[in-house]
Amino acid sequence: MDDVRILNLKESVFADNDREAEKLREELTRRGVFLLNLMSAPGSGKTTLLVAIINKLKDEFKIGVMEADIDGRCDAETIVQKTGVRAIQLHTGGMCHLDAGMTRQGIEGMGDNDFDLLILENVGNLVCPAEFDTGATKNMMILSVPEGDDKPIKYPLMFEVSDAVIISKIDTLPVFDFDMDVARERIKRRNPNAVIFPASAKTGEGIDAICDWLRCEIRSIASR
Amino acid sequence: MDDVRILNLKESVFADNDREAEKLREELTRRGVFLLNLMSAPGSGKTTLLVAIINKLKDEFKIGVMEADIDGRCDAETIVQKTGVRAIQLHTGGMCHLDAGMTRQGIEGMGDNDFDLLILENVGNLVCPAEFDTGATKNMMILSVPEGDDKPIKYPLMFEVSDAVIISKIDTLPVFDFDMDVARERIKRRNPNAVIFPASAKTGEGIDAICDWLRCEIRSIASR
Repeated sequence: MDDVRILNLKESVFADNDREAEKLREELTRRGVFLLNLMSAPGSGKTTLLVAIINKLKDEFKIGVMEADIDGRCDAETIVQKTGVRAIQLHTGGMCHLDAGMTRQGIEGMGDNDFDLLILENVGNLVCPAEFDTGATKNMMILSVPEGDDKPIKYPLMFEVSDAVIISKIDTLPVFDFDMDVARERIKRRNPNAVIFPASAKTGEGIDAICDWLRCEIRSIASR
Repeated sequence: MDDVRILNLKESVFADNDREAEKLREELTRRGVFLLNLMSAPGSGKTTLLVAIINKLKDEFKIGVMEADIDGRCDAETIVQKTGVRAIQLHTGGMCHLDAGMTRQGIEGMGDNDFDLLILENVGNLVCPAEFDTGATKNMMILSVPEGDDKPIKYPLMFEVSDAVIISKIDTLPVFDFDMDVARERIKRRNPNAVIFPASAKTGEGIDAICDWLRCEIRSIASR
């Protein structure tokens, strides 16, 4: 297999990230590109879940993936090997989040304007990525069962800015003290509009519901 | 039960955090206080593990705990309820890490100079806390089995600055693809001097080894 491309991001020069993000979002919408910003704590299974989702959607949509990490290249390689869609690795140079300027560098690095669905896998971190608008069409976050149902209490902003929350690794519910009703209630208290999807990439449970939501969102952008 | 005290930290005014951290570390050493900075991703089980450790050490040492979070108070309450040692909750005002100035505010908030072991539970985050020296005597981090054995590749600095790495939730090894040998090798590549402790707060496995290490470290400070 060819090595995946690694793009070293430069620090952004824009003072007003919110404005840059709005500009990028409008551009993408005009081009019919749905940009999904996927956030979570380290090790919540973002990449594994993405593989399951992409394999269900790749015949309907042209999909590309940008994998952001401080170091390493394994996530982009996993996406390419297990789904066949185009993926690049973004190295943040130690930065704990992506902003709109960095996201734009990533999109340019994809070298193509023709995607229906572009996925940005943000740096694994429940704090900083929530503070920076990337210009994405929608924000999605993953809360994995092993992390515990108290995370909406401790990381309020991440839940507030996420349009969709996936509760992942639900196949491990029997071995962890995780109360699904309590988790739902805490998420809703932070963000009444969030859609919540319990899912397991291992068993496949819940993946269809996520794909249905994405399909609907992608088509709503494409039809504008 | 009385409510635990919540201390709202102010942003530090010091330009040179490394110098402030060194100053704090020297002061603590002079006073015979061992300050442990405990870091990990959200949901790796820092508090649960602390409860197990503290209950084994609290008859030998005077222990205090500072629980840092963006919001919430559940961790400090858990420590008080399950161990009986003094604990306060530090609110970071949205900040993703603690620095030496904030740590000093926390220590002053503990209202006592007489601890043998002070534990700072840092904000759940594998990125930013690694970049700021808190002034702690030693850094300890937790990598939980559900997070995966690839974390030393993706979060290099956190592993480089940690004197001890606990691989936690090992009771869940049967349900996750986590290779203990691979994890050890990747940690050692980042930090050949790190001591590694596989452990489970649920079964108690490995907790004694962590306590032995802490005992030795605390006594080495106390005897200076």
